[in-house]
Amino acid sequence: MIHYVWETVGTLVFCVSGAIAAREKEMDWFGMFVMAFVTGAGGGLLRSVLIGDVPPQFLKNPMTFGLAAGGTVIALAGSEWWRKMRRAVSVVDALGLGLFTVTGIRISQAHGLPWWACLALGVISATFGGLLRDVLRNEIPLVLRKEIYATACIIGGLALLGLDRLGLHEGVVLGITSTLVVVIRLLAIRYAIHQSTG
Amino acid sequence: MIHYVWETVGTLVFCVSGAIAAREKEMDWFGMFVMAFVTGAGGGLLRSVLIGDVPPQFLKNPMTFGLAAGGTVIALAGSEWWRKMRRAVSVVDALGLGLFTVTGIRISQAHGLPWWACLALGVISATFGGLLRDVLRNEIPLVLRKEIYATACIIGGLALLGLDRLGLHEGVVLGITSTLVVVIRLLAIRYAIHQSTG
Amino acid sequence: MIHYVWETVGTLVFCVSGAIAAREKEMDWFGMFVMAFVTGAGGGLLRSVLIGDVPPQFLKNPMTFGLAAGGTVIALAGSEWWRKMRRAVSVVDALGLGLFTVTGIRISQAHGLPWWACLALGVISATFGGLLRDVLRNEIPLVLRKEIYATACIIGGLALLGLDRLGLHEGVVLGITSTLVVVIRLLAIRYAIHQSTG
Repeated sequence: MIHYVWETVGTLVFCVSGAIAAREKEMDWFGMFVMAFVTGAGGGLLRSVLIGDVPPQFLKNPMTFGLAAGGTVIALAGSEWWRKMRRAVSVVDALGLGLFTVTGIRISQAHGLPWWACLALGVISATFGGLLRDVLRNEIPLVLRKEIYATACIIGGLALLGLDRLGLHEGVVLGITSTLVVVIRLLAIRYAIHQSTG
Repeated sequence: MIHYVWETVGTLVFCVSGAIAAREKEMDWFGMFVMAFVTGAGGGLLRSVLIGDVPPQFLKNPMTFGLAAGGTVIALAGSEWWRKMRRAVSVVDALGLGLFTVTGIRISQAHGLPWWACLALGVISATFGGLLRDVLRNEIPLVLRKEIYATACIIGGLALLGLDRLGLHEGVVLGITSTLVVVIRLLAIRYAIHQSTG
Repeated sequence: MIHYVWETVGTLVFCVSGAIAAREKEMDWFGMFVMAFVTGAGGGLLRSVLIGDVPPQFLKNPMTFGLAAGGTVIALAGSEWWRKMRRAVSVVDALGLGLFTVTGIRISQAHGLPWWACLALGVISATFGGLLRDVLRNEIPLVLRKEIYATACIIGGLALLGLDRLGLHEGVVLGITSTLVVVIRLLAIRYAIHQSTG
């Protein structure tokens, strides 16, 4: 339940980031809505297509469209306020990242895939939306460049797979994994850690 | 039947627009063919993948390849003539847009999806080909920026879903919806209506 | 068996090309890995999704992830040495191109698709990875511009489909087809043949 609430909040944050990214490129309301939608739902969409779980969730439950619409409204009406909330947004964004990774892995496990495939699908679930957002903005995807987004997801995913072996309660596993992703992300932002191949 | 003829003509117009867009970026004949194909078939392709209706139509019926080849030839041999026909092209393009929306919605309805998912798939069917064309041209997709392409599709799609309730003959519904999309598009071109978020 | 060995080597060459292309754009290690992976596996992935053969191979066999990791290491540690091997790399790359085309056609045939659809899927299998690589690099895909990559694949594919009619041994058919693609590619590189539409 709390997982569901946080994932919804995380998706909304992703959607707002997409809509703001669209506005920066002077897209119209439809462009903002599409970018919000793609950023929030892109990862789950690719995962669904790859494991043959179609139609994807967003065609069965209108929630994602609602979140994309909400993200567009926030980007239009409250982008100033949103910027002021920067710190809170970073935390929720990191939490979304962690929960998307966990959800991606759990759904992949339910489809009987091997652990490394589940890990890959977890990372795809968390990062592909942002990658699509950047491609549509006509930019090299941020996730492939400077941020340690992906590293945080991979470490979180590996932790999840490791903790699974210990037979802990799902809530505990989820809590540790999410906290880990959030901490890594926030440390990275704090110390501006980038990974570069120079 | 007349639906089929118009959809074929609409696809051809989409294909020519893709091939011309390719030529402007100095692509070779293969690039032109791929861009023609992607612009004409991209929307239907994504719809097929999302609803699990694979292999998509273009792998079962060679028509799309023929239309892409035809579009490439027209872009190579008759781009001058094509420009002169600008007004006629706009009408056929708008008609294609309307019919792609309708076809997308009808196919989605046949798969038992809810109305809002059908509407989304209708808009995707009509606009995704052009979006892919622009991504391959390394540009921010036009449909996300200035044109009211998407708005016309959404209004047409909503009209279709509304008219369905009235129990009218399919031909009448189709005629009203298509006319609506064409009129909106042509008015937008006439008065250069753009939607901007400033 | 020899087919399998060469395809693996061909995939590795594709992966290295992706990782080097990533490094040129100053991506981090994750970006290099993703670009290696996408370049090596993108064609097979799209083919799998289009014919409904999901989950795709890379989620069932970890080999592709290993090759992408290997390609990343080579691009990081040995890009100087790799450049010196340019001629050998060109041959292996062309061989990969030919074998990807053949594999794509054979798998499509096994799914009962018509010959022209098999040919299209063969070309997609061989070229889509490089196309994705260039889109992620924020460039107009090379395969749509100057190289005769696609032409070599199409001629090789047509030769394969033609030779099939003669009832020759699979090894002979494969040998002729691959040689043809390699020769066309190397001649093109030698004489810098480009196809331009002016």
